[in-house]
Order: sequence, then C-alpha cells, then structure tokens
Amino acid sequence: MRMVDIITKKRNNEELSEQEIQYFVEGYTKETIPDYQVSALLMAIYFNGMTELETANLTRAMVESGETIDLSKIQGHKVDKHSTGGVGDKTTFVVGPLVASVGVPVAKMSGRGLGHTGGTLDKLESIKGFDIELSKQAFIHHVNKYRLAVAGQSGNLAPADKKLYALRDVTATVDSIPLIASSIMSKKLASGADSIVLDVKTGSGAFMKTLQDSEALASEMVKIGQNLNRNTIAVISDMNQPLGFEVGNANEVKEAVEVLQGKRVNDLRELALEIGSHMAVLAEVFETYEKAYQVLENNLDNGRAFAIFRDFVKAQGGSVEMIDDLSKLPTASHHIEVKATEEGYIEEIDAESIGIAAMFLGAGRATKEDKINYGVGITLKKKIGDQVKIGEPLVVLHSDDPSPNDSIQKVMQSYKISSTITEKKQLIYKVIY
Amino acid sequence: MRMVDIITKKRNNEELSEQEIQYFVEGYTKETIPDYQVSALLMAIYFNGMTELETANLTRAMVESGETIDLSKIQGHKVDKHSTGGVGDKTTFVVGPLVASVGVPVAKMSGRGLGHTGGTLDKLESIKGFDIELSKQAFIHHVNKYRLAVAGQSGNLAPADKKLYALRDVTATVDSIPLIASSIMSKKLASGADSIVLDVKTGSGAFMKTLQDSEALASEMVKIGQNLNRNTIAVISDMNQPLGFEVGNANEVKEAVEVLQGKRVNDLRELALEIGSHMAVLAEVFETYEKAYQVLENNLDNGRAFAIFRDFVKAQGGSVEMIDDLSKLPTASHHIEVKATEEGYIEEIDAESIGIAAMFLGAGRATKEDKINYGVGITLKKKIGDQVKIGEPLVVLHSDDPSPNDSIQKVMQSYKISSTITEKKQLIYKVIY
Repeated sequence: MRMVDIITKKRNNEELSEQEIQYFVEGYTKETIPDYQVSALLMAIYFNGMTELETANLTRAMVESGETIDLSKIQGHKVDKHSTGGVGDKTTFVVGPLVASVGVPVAKMSGRGLGHTGGTLDKLESIKGFDIELSKQAFIHHVNKYRLAVAGQSGNLAPADKKLYALRDVTATVDSIPLIASSIMSKKLASGADSIVLDVKTGSGAFMKTLQDSEALASEMVKIGQNLNRNTIAVISDMNQPLGFEVGNANEVKEAVEVLQGKRVNDLRELALEIGSHMAVLAEVFETYEKAYQVLENNLDNGRAFAIFRDFVKAQGGSVEMIDDLSKLPTASHHIEVKATEEGYIEEIDAESIGIAAMFLGAGRATKEDKINYGVGITLKKKIGDQVKIGEPLVVLHSDDPSPNDSIQKVMQSYKISSTITEKKQLIYKVIY
Repeated sequence: MRMVDIITKKRNNEELSEQEIQYFVEGYTKETIPDYQVSALLMAIYFNGMTELETANLTRAMVESGETIDLSKIQGHKVDKHSTGGVGDKTTFVVGPLVASVGVPVAKMSGRGLGHTGGTLDKLESIKGFDIELSKQAFIHHVNKYRLAVAGQSGNLAPADKKLYALRDVTATVDSIPLIASSIMSKKLASGADSIVLDVKTGSGAFMKTLQDSEALASEMVKIGQNLNRNTIAVISDMNQPLGFEVGNANEVKEAVEVLQGKRVNDLRELALEIGSHMAVLAEVFETYEKAYQVLENNLDNGRAFAIFRDFVKAQGGSVEMIDDLSKLPTASHHIEVKATEEGYIEEIDAESIGIAAMFLGAGRATKEDKINYGVGITLKKKIGDQVKIGEPLVVLHSDDPSPNDSIQKVMQSYKISSTITEKKQLIYKVIY
C-alpha cells in the first residue's frame, strides 16, 4: 500500500477502505508516513468529506492507536457525558451526582487543556484539598462505592488523534465535520464507557456557530457511536450566551452546588435534567425519558444529588466545609460592577467575549504553563431577554486587579441592548438519536 | 504573515495576493515553511485552482527563487521552444537548424531527466564526440556564430519549482493545470528567451490525454507568458501515436537528419515547419506565418537547414562523418520484426506502450543512475490509418538482447487493428495565441 495512492483516491472522491484508513493512521502514529502526506490527505478530506463508514473506520483506527481504559470492573452500565465546550458550562457537576443518585456509575476522566476558564479538573481543584490523581484501582473503587469519581486522564489515549489534531491546527484543516467528530469520539470511545450522551453546543460561544453545523456534527458523532457499538445520543443546546450566571472556577462550582441544593438557575438546571435523563435511560435505569426526568428532578429537590456530590468531594480529599458554606470557596479581592450605559432589553451576549474577559482576569490558561486563579471570574446579572436600566449592573467582575480594564471593555462589547422587547433563548434545540 | 492564514484563504477560494504567494514560495525555498503546510496548500490549489493573476505571481516567484540566465549578449530576438513531451519527439533537431537558417538565434538549454528514451542531450550524445558541456561564454559565442547551440542546463534555475514538484509527486497534487503550467513556465522564463513557442502534446502518449485538458494547459501557459511579458504561443499537436517512425536515441537523430535533408516524414516535417514558422514570426523575421512557412520549407528542401545542423554538430565536437553517413550512427546488434497476426487497418498505437517497450530495450532511464544504450530503439513500420496484412512487420526492434520478450509483448499490446478503414490522425489541433 502506498500513501500517495490513498491521497489520490480520497482526492478523487472515492471511498477509502478500512485497511487504507488503518494503514495511514498506524503509519502516521509510528512516523513511517510523513506529515506532508497526511496534511495533503486531510485537505482532500476537508474538500471531499468522508462517508459514514470511513468516519467510523477512522475513529476506530485512532482508538486502536493507543491505550483504552477498561471499566469492566465497575458494576453497572457506564454512561459518559461529553460537552463540545462553552462558556460557563458546569453541567457535569450537576449531572454527575444527579445520575449517580439513581444508580448510574459515573467514571469521569478529564483533561485540562487550554481555555477561557479552567476545565473540569481545575474547577474541582478550587475546592481545597481536592485530589484528581487517583490510581486506577482507587478510581474504580471510588466509582463502585460512591457512584461518582473524577480523575485526570492518564494513559496514552488515541495518540493518533493528538498528532492529527496538532497537524490540522497548522494546515487549516480543523473545520471538517468528519474530522472533528472522529477526533472527539476517538477519545470518548477510548475512555471505555458503554453509552455516551453528547452535549453539542450551538451559537456565538460554541465551536459550531450555526444550528445546521451543530446538527451535522451531532449526527456524525451519533453515527460513529452506533457504528462502533455504543449507544450514543446528542443534545443540541444553546451557547448564544454563557450557561447559568457564573463564569470562572470556584464561582462555577458554587453555582453548580446551589443547583444541586434545589436553586432554580433555569438553563443550568434544565440542561442538567435533560442530559441526566437521557443518561439514565441509556443506562436502562428507566424505560422512558419522562420517568427519568421526574425522578431526577425529585432528587435535585430532595437533596439526594447534593448528598452524593458532598460524599464525592469528601472521598477525593476536598474540603466539605467549603461545600457546606459556599462563601468559604476562593474568591477575588475586588468585585467590580460593569453597568449599563443605555436602557432596554438584552438582545445578545457574546459568550466568547465573556470567556475572554474571564481569561483576562486569570480564570483560564492561554498556554500550558499559565496558572489558574480559582477565585476570579464573572457573575452575569443580566441575560438575554432581561430588561435593564441605565446604571444597573450587567455583570460583576471578581478580580484581583482593582482596574481590570481589558475585561471591562470586553464585557461592554459583548452586551447588545435593544430598545424593544427581546425574546429569551431556547435552551434545547434538538435531540439526535 | 502566517502560512496557516494563506492556506485558509486558498481553501476558502479567495485570491492570494502577490505578497502572500511570494511569502510562501520564498519561505519554502529557504525551508522556513515546512513541507506539511505547503502540501496542504497544494491540495487546496488542486481543488480551488488559481486565478490568472495568482498563476502569474506563482510563476514569477518561482523564477525569482533562483538564478536566471542572461542571454542579452546574444544578438537578435531569442525564441525558445518547449515540448510537453511525447514518444519519438525529435522536433527540436529539425526546428533548431530550420529557424537558425532564417537568422533566429537558438540558444537551447536542456536537462536530462527520466523517460522512455533519452532527452535532447542524450540523443545528441549518440553522435560520437558531441560535447554538451559548454561554458557560458562558449555557449554565447556558439549561438552568435552558428545561430544554434545546445548545452546542459547549469545553474540553479527555479529551485522552488524543483522542491514543489518533488512534493507534488508524493502528495497527489501533480494533476493541477495552474501548477503544471507555472512549473513549466518558471523554468522556461528563467532560461532567458524573449519569446516562447510551446508544443503541447495531446493524446494517449501525452501527459494530457484529452484535447480539453491540453487546451486548458496551453491557455494557462500562454497567459503566464503574456503576464510576464514574453510573447508566447502554444501549438496543440497529436500524441496519439509516436511522432515520426523512430523511437530511441541515435535512430531519432537519424530520422531528424533525414527530414533536414528533405525527406518527407510527414508528421515530423509538418510539426517542425509549424513550430518553426511561429518562432520565426515571433522573432520578427517574417510578418506572416504563411511567408515564414514558405521560406522554412524551402530551407528544408534546399539543404540550408541541414548545413546549419552539420556546422552545429562539428562546432560542438560531434562526428560529422556520422551525420554524412547515417549508417555510422550507433545501432543495436539485433533487428527483430514484430509482425501483425491479423489483417486490417491500424486503429490505435498506444504511444506510451511503445515508449515503455523502448525503455525495456535500454533507450531510456528509469532511475538517474541508468545508462542509456544509444543504439537500441524501435522503428515503426505502420502508423494509424495504414493497411496491414498478416505477417507484415508492425515495428522493428533494435535490440542488443536477441529475445526482448517484454518489449515484443508491449508492442503487440499497443497496436489495435480494425477490420474497417480507419482515419489518419490530425496532427495540429489548434494554435493558441
């Protein structure tokens, strides 16, 4: 087999065989096929796309390029949840304990990565003492005992995806739905869950800005899951503004805990119930979505989900005091209101700009070496559809810098105020089975 | 400027600026831009093409990536001729002396390369003593004195093209008309001629198999020439069978000399007159093609063109004896007839297969290290449209191997005989100004 023939075939819009896809993924991982041939193939894929079968085979080859995690020692049907990423997305902290409360084992492996705010691991580490470095045995033991554990991703999962992603980044071949879908799914599938619920974000703060693209990505991922024998569902949810009111690290944990305690933070609560219900159905705990939703909602309101979260924090060494008294979580030294300079109704909040404003405060990492400041962040006081008067705060910036001018400017740019009444955003656009 | 932005722009089908094209060609030549980004760009060009302006700018940047040859010390208007390559193409040996006979200076730089038979230099070297290694001064002196000189290409012409071509070869991005056109033209333009006549071959033995593709390539090259201020004309000529009757090295020289002596080898004579007439008009020796054609034809028949060829061979140290007595040119030890096994009319002769048969005999180079056997080759006894009876020879193989079975098989495969009368092939399809 010759790589140039594989490139030619894809360039001519013919379907690559399973063997051809394996050949190139294996060869690239082992560095017997050079970057310059792979980048030419990736560009041909950008233009000609991939069939459902090719995408499934690509995903499988990337999974097989490295280690896979064996969760078989965890009792029960393991359901993983993955979000394509957005601003203020702390859904995992609500969903995890929520589905654990009905007996679904949640074995969450997470990475750190770069972003406007920290990732799941960083946010948890804003709780004093929280330890994400569990051994394999401890991780499995925790899940079996508490139904919920979160650990840092160890092991060499889908190394082909890592190499391909780095190459795509510098060759303008990131924006290809089959490549994005197979990249996400290869990591999920290597993580060993039996079923997967995907939270595909759509809108200004999402990777996919349009509903059409988000649907295409969601369908592609669901098909990959099905072709590789995992039940997979995708929920397409709104990311035209941050989720909930808090953007940062410790303040996101705080907001999640409040929802676990029954507080009505509408979009966050609704999304967690939606995703949790699908997970519980996939795990065969309930027969219908409606039944699952009803029980889960109950478990939010009666404190069961919160109790699990509390046990989980304690089990991983985190300070329960901070959870019982949320004011003890890290916070910044200054709390600066950014006020409206015109009156009307909030029409748009550019979620990405809010994210960047949070990063300027120190909530995220631009490079791997950056250290996260857990206490800083942003509290939204107004969301889309809200009425606002001149001088009313739009957001509060939690900052260690008394004059965070860059962040203030970013926030000001992100809010668009209309003189006429605006509609609230729909939260869930579609569920793809 | 960032290479990834240039790739993105071309991928999105936007026009690259002159600066962007220069940036990538320069960066690639100096190895500050890696192969993998260039191959992604090449694949994007494969899909989205290039505008006329982009193609001209790419060609200019490739010319400027290396040395250019200064022919200003040669008196008169220098016209170069370039063939896109075919089997049995010895046109240069007829055209060179022919246009020199009307005062057009012919300063021909040539390479060796790989192929079914040798290149121009190899064929000339089949004449004992012929020296293609002329110093720059000697080369210019020869052209001024004899109006005709052929030398090996020294100097680092269009190094960017060399690097890009090597990369295209392994990334399935060869078949792109703007890339082919700019590659050919960059070398021609670096060679310093004032005007260029292109012989674009079309058909089974050509790089471009269809008339449509050949026309597209020809137009693209003519436009590049015009945009870079060289008068450029392209003649589209047939390559559905070898040109003339001889395929090899010494035997091709022999056939060219016979045409220079007035022999009617119809297609070779006609093509040489056609190309030579355009060259003479571009050089402003004649006002009209018709007038040029008339004088050139005369100079074939009255021996003037032959006399120039003879002087040229002598001046470069070649054996004039061999030219005066063509039987003294190298030949093979065996002459094997391949006979028709059915009767009818020749419908097709796959030129490429004839070329491969010649290469099997030793007439060409598959790798740079191969040595050419000047005496071996093929003489066609039948061409398209000819009637043939069972047992009549189709070709004669000149071979040092008494049983060149591979070549015999290739020749048998290349001839297709029809039971009904077939038409002779048109030689000149179109001239593009």
